[in-house]
Amino acid sequence: MALLAIDLGGTKLSTAVFTTEGLMITKQTVPLQGRAGSAVGKLITETITETMSAAADLGDPVQSIGICVPGISRMKKGTVWAPNIPGWEDYPLLEEVKKVTGATPVIVDSDRSCYIMGEVWKGNAKGSSNAIFLAVGTGIGAGIIIDGNILRGAQDIGGAVGWLALERPYQEKYKNHGCFEYAASGNGIARIAEEMLQSDRSYSGILRQKPSELITAHDVFSAAAENDLLALAVLRFCIEYWGMAIANLVSTFNPEKIIIGGGIFGPALQFLPQIKQEALKWAQPISWQQVSIEPSALGSDAGIYGAAYMALQNQKRT
Amino acid sequence: MALLAIDLGGTKLSTAVFTTEGLMITKQTVPLQGRAGSAVGKLITETITETMSAAADLGDPVQSIGICVPGISRMKKGTVWAPNIPGWEDYPLLEEVKKVTGATPVIVDSDRSCYIMGEVWKGNAKGSSNAIFLAVGTGIGAGIIIDGNILRGAQDIGGAVGWLALERPYQEKYKNHGCFEYAASGNGIARIAEEMLQSDRSYSGILRQKPSELITAHDVFSAAAENDLLALAVLRFCIEYWGMAIANLVSTFNPEKIIIGGGIFGPALQFLPQIKQEALKWAQPISWQQVSIEPSALGSDAGIYGAAYMALQNQKRT
Repeated sequence: MALLAIDLGGTKLSTAVFTTEGLMITKQTVPLQGRAGSAVGKLITETITETMSAAADLGDPVQSIGICVPGISRMKKGTVWAPNIPGWEDYPLLEEVKKVTGATPVIVDSDRSCYIMGEVWKGNAKGSSNAIFLAVGTGIGAGIIIDGNILRGAQDIGGAVGWLALERPYQEKYKNHGCFEYAASGNGIARIAEEMLQSDRSYSGILRQKPSELITAHDVFSAAAENDLLALAVLRFCIEYWGMAIANLVSTFNPEKIIIGGGIFGPALQFLPQIKQEALKWAQPISWQQVSIEPSALGSDAGIYGAAYMALQNQKRT
Repeated sequence: MALLAIDLGGTKLSTAVFTTEGLMITKQTVPLQGRAGSAVGKLITETITETMSAAADLGDPVQSIGICVPGISRMKKGTVWAPNIPGWEDYPLLEEVKKVTGATPVIVDSDRSCYIMGEVWKGNAKGSSNAIFLAVGTGIGAGIIIDGNILRGAQDIGGAVGWLALERPYQEKYKNHGCFEYAASGNGIARIAEEMLQSDRSYSGILRQKPSELITAHDVFSAAAENDLLALAVLRFCIEYWGMAIANLVSTFNPEKIIIGGGIFGPALQFLPQIKQEALKWAQPISWQQVSIEPSALGSDAGIYGAAYMALQNQKRT
């Protein structure tokens, strides 16, 4: 029995076929090449049609389909909000896909939900019933599993932890991103670097070699690797925020595992010991003893593994 | 069919009989009178035996029992940790109770879980599947319901939101309570008042009339009612914390309702408009639009209503 998993990103589409045991048999990735709106939907339905047909020809037909989307899946309506895909404010993906899948069950879920499901199935949260994936990339979000079920919230936007309030008083600059994401996402690291460059006029190190508004998180990590003091100060600030946010998740959820992933972890994984040291100070102490904080095992494949696992679970339900 | 609900507090025991429709038929409260350890267990089992016998005599036997405890109910072990009852570090309450209840189902749960279940059944969260009770009394905790199920966490200590990190850098004084509870619980209000009295030597208002270490939250509310500037500053500080914590719950859970209760709300309810104004600045904006923040409808009866509702649900399951 085959599972078809699709991971839609902001710039590319990955498609994989899995066994029900979680073995990835094939995987292919194609760029979106600037597609928008229903052209992205069409790419997905064509890919599904081809993959289903190929699997059937091999005598192992697709039994269930899972789709991971870069945004929010409105489960009741079957529509998707994906901020990086133009025209996907409320795109009826489920309806489009069902036109080509017949009776085969389909589930569409958010990237953050897929990440944690992937890690629970085949990654560093394997077998956990209470686990969280903290995804720190361009933005910040969390996929949260409680007693084996995904936390969606009343309108499918639970886990928006980029909005965590971690420092009073409120500042207008938090308005578009939330306090945590403003400072400690990929773009946040760049923003904090820019702020520090503007306030520390005496600094003349590596990060002065570029206009401050062009500095990226990558520049900050590179400079920190050369012991640049301003870059290290930016990351110390972010380490505090990451530690506080992890502590808040530990105290609130009493989870078994918190998996740290996304593009920034990645390079920020080298600071995991310091982040844990920070979190330990803030968290409910008994919950802290019971949780394990670990990097993502699946990295950029977490979403597609999660989509496959969701397909498997959805198939069992239907 | 009758439901037997018990609400154990730190100083008293309340017992009520409910109909399955949620009508409270009888309620009585007895003081613990300094009882500790198994003497509290004995008081509970005796009360259950008497109440079950009386209900049977009236021709309406008890079909299910719910017990609300002031601490943590370790669901798998059936034991209770209740910090205000000496000897209840890991008290085998379920085993004790089952000795007198025969085949009648019994469920023991934490006060914070019971509060939100009570409000969902008969209070201001009626009918909600995703709702949170933020209990601010001597300490701070949250009862959280997700898709109709209580968030317990891996070891039944989920909802320990008194430990929320809301302000960097970490300070040693947060160690025993957590950052949020340190400042914004009943005892926290007194602590912040004491801190402000010590740092503001020029103040000579109402709160100087007592040694600062004897000041209570009640004193602060009274002084604030007379426009005392220091008392108002203490409460402004707490309003910020309450707002930030509520915002964090909204962003993380995307709930339909947040119910505010406990001894401090109560007097702090007059500030609910300011608290909402603060929370609105921090919270994920779409989730904020979808949530309603309301006072507890059941007040000090939230726990006993919740215990009765848990009894009802547990009876349906068994």
